Amino acid sequence: MIQTADFDYYAPTKVVFGRGAESRLGTLVREQGCKKVLIHYGGGSAVRSGLIARVEKALDEEGIGHVALGGVVPNPHLGLVYDGIELGKKEGVDFILAVGGGSVIDSAKAIAYGIADPEEGDVWDFFVKKRPSKACLPVGVVLTIAAAGSEMSNDSVITNEKTGIKRGHGNDISRAKFAVMNPELTMSLPDYQSMSGCTDIMMHTMERYFTNNGNMELTDSIAEGLLRTVRKYTEIIHAEPDSYEARAEVMWAGSLSHNGLTGCGAKERDFASHILEHELGGMFDVTHGAGLAAIWGTWARYVYRDCLDRFVKFAVNVMDVEPGETGEETALKGIEAMEAFYRRIGMPTSLHELGVDPTDEQIDIMAHNAIIASGGKRGSARVLYEDDFVRIYKAARDDR
Amino acid sequence: MIQTADFDYYAPTKVVFGRGAESRLGTLVREQGCKKVLIHYGGGSAVRSGLIARVEKALDEEGIGHVALGGVVPNPHLGLVYDGIELGKKEGVDFILAVGGGSVIDSAKAIAYGIADPEEGDVWDFFVKKRPSKACLPVGVVLTIAAAGSEMSNDSVITNEKTGIKRGHGNDISRAKFAVMNPELTMSLPDYQSMSGCTDIMMHTMERYFTNNGNMELTDSIAEGLLRTVRKYTEIIHAEPDSYEARAEVMWAGSLSHNGLTGCGAKERDFASHILEHELGGMFDVTHGAGLAAIWGTWARYVYRDCLDRFVKFAVNVMDVEPGETGEETALKGIEAMEAFYRRIGMPTSLHELGVDPTDEQIDIMAHNAIIASGGKRGSARVLYEDDFVRIYKAARDDR
Repeated sequence: MIQTADFDYYAPTKVVFGRGAESRLGTLVREQGCKKVLIHYGGGSAVRSGLIARVEKALDEEGIGHVALGGVVPNPHLGLVYDGIELGKKEGVDFILAVGGGSVIDSAKAIAYGIADPEEGDVWDFFVKKRPSKACLPVGVVLTIAAAGSEMSNDSVITNEKTGIKRGHGNDISRAKFAVMNPELTMSLPDYQSMSGCTDIMMHTMERYFTNNGNMELTDSIAEGLLRTVRKYTEIIHAEPDSYEARAEVMWAGSLSHNGLTGCGAKERDFASHILEHELGGMFDVTHGAGLAAIWGTWARYVYRDCLDRFVKFAVNVMDVEPGETGEETALKGIEAMEAFYRRIGMPTSLHELGVDPTDEQIDIMAHNAIIASGGKRGSARVLYEDDFVRIYKAARDDR
Repeated sequence: MIQTADFDYYAPTKVVFGRGAESRLGTLVREQGCKKVLIHYGGGSAVRSGLIARVEKALDEEGIGHVALGGVVPNPHLGLVYDGIELGKKEGVDFILAVGGGSVIDSAKAIAYGIADPEEGDVWDFFVKKRPSKACLPVGVVLTIAAAGSEMSNDSVITNEKTGIKRGHGNDISRAKFAVMNPELTMSLPDYQSMSGCTDIMMHTMERYFTNNGNMELTDSIAEGLLRTVRKYTEIIHAEPDSYEARAEVMWAGSLSHNGLTGCGAKERDFASHILEHELGGMFDVTHGAGLAAIWGTWARYVYRDCLDRFVKFAVNVMDVEPGETGEETALKGIEAMEAFYRRIGMPTSLHELGVDPTDEQIDIMAHNAIIASGGKRGSARVLYEDDFVRIYKAARDDR
């Protein structure tokens, strides 16, 4: 019998969830004892919608100073992180407030590492594992996209736009002090972004679920309940983007998916799909969730025989599949059901549908970078090496 | 359609889970920047088992000073809290470490409030709502009983042993900084204690589940998964007390049951069973979990028609009951299944089986105290008043 693995669980972020929650922002920053905030955001929509003005007003009301830096793009760029560090130091900010989704939060965390770095070195060092991070300015979040789970995670993923290399760094000191979550703020997202977000949320749980080395039954029951709930409400959002209930269910699931809860007691996580997508994102700038959907089916068919019990459990408990005559048949029906779900919500199930067509040479480069980022191998459902990555990328190119 | 209620979720306690986790204690206290620890514990078993010595060694290794105060009893006494405050002030401790279960943790939190109280007043004031608590020394936990969930909750329940009055106080500032959870430490508990603990854990989730004013579907799916898991592993512990897996599942479920997770998005909690049991505990000093089991069936039969949909859902999704012809029939089958479960694990389903036989006068006193503690009414499955409490206590007396 595989025993429950020892684990640490640490999710200190204070969640403030509901309508108009952003009005409590000033109080939340003041509770942290901070005096000057760098408001970090993405495109102009946060300004046009009036959200940034509301954020500034909430800070003004508590007498908290602020300066703003917008311009974060999906697969956030190292260059803007450098700009944020310079601006933050010049302005003497002591708090970074991310107003946006995963990209903005990740960029905010990177800026927070950079400003607080006692060695005043290059923040990119932490992402390429050249040296460990030791300090981080406090970060807060006003979440506008349910997807990355970065609002409660210890991760940050940054792309060096000059080299196309995308790398993640995780440290508990970067976990957000608070996350303001108003589901209404996510209603205006384009459908493709919403569906990519839902895909990402499910994948964060699946990356922890598909592992060969044991999981607590309690963790499995939470993971399966979360996946079923997100599956249902993703389709409701696709049909009815203004459903508060659906937006709320998905938004909260996004945080729980990636704050560690769905991995407690598991010895390992898989995360091969994520690492494969990271390289796609770095090279082709695709939307993260869509990239995951485009890869997942191929990955699943490549590995499921080595993790058959859990693919069967997934098929039955999450995808509501009628068991086939063999475990293999049931597992495949579960994978097919997931791909059919992706198609119904407009997500790609191949690189071609994703709109990218990497050459063999580009695939070799991505597989090579992915394996370096993984330290030589990756995966728990099945341990994958560089040549496995090459095969999966190639098989994922064509429509099924 | 009932909408998801706005909610805050804050569970900052760092969980360190697994075999030998207590060896990390010194580092965990040092991370809090603290220098002198009051080690608080219950009976002599923590000393005889060598646990207190291991705790002291872990602190010594990091050069952290310590002083110890044992003697906490179930339904922990206010008198010992006063002793702890006096000792802690005299010794200049800056951290309270609870080594035990819910009673020890609750007592530790009360001591922490008392030492940190800027007004240097009576700590009992906070429990009788005479004034709000404003400060609390940092508290850490080495958990030895899976039950109360106090290791991640913001609650503390103390009994004034001179008056027999038991009161709770909750404030986020008292949440433990860390909780060391080694399932092996719970293996030596007497069966009755273990089963009482499991009952308490399930009840913490049920108190949030049986509500009439909406719940998130995600929260429901987590709650149902947790209840199913604990139900299964409680019976395994009853048969096989040394099962690490079963102890681990129940221990982690105990924390998640009461850290807020199983109530996110619910407008209200019920907690009538708990308030009814609190008075029993105050007057007769019964084991908390056993007291809950003795009350629950009577409470459930008294209220289920007013919360029928959720009792049906509970019967089917948690107790695996075959639906009857009517919702009422299904709900009753679910209640019966729960009572049968209590009997299988040796828990009482009446006050008589619990070993207490309150007079009508004693019942009037308990109902009166319970309704005062509730501010005039209590419950969400059905709102209950003083005369309802009297009827439930009376109906709970006799065996079914």
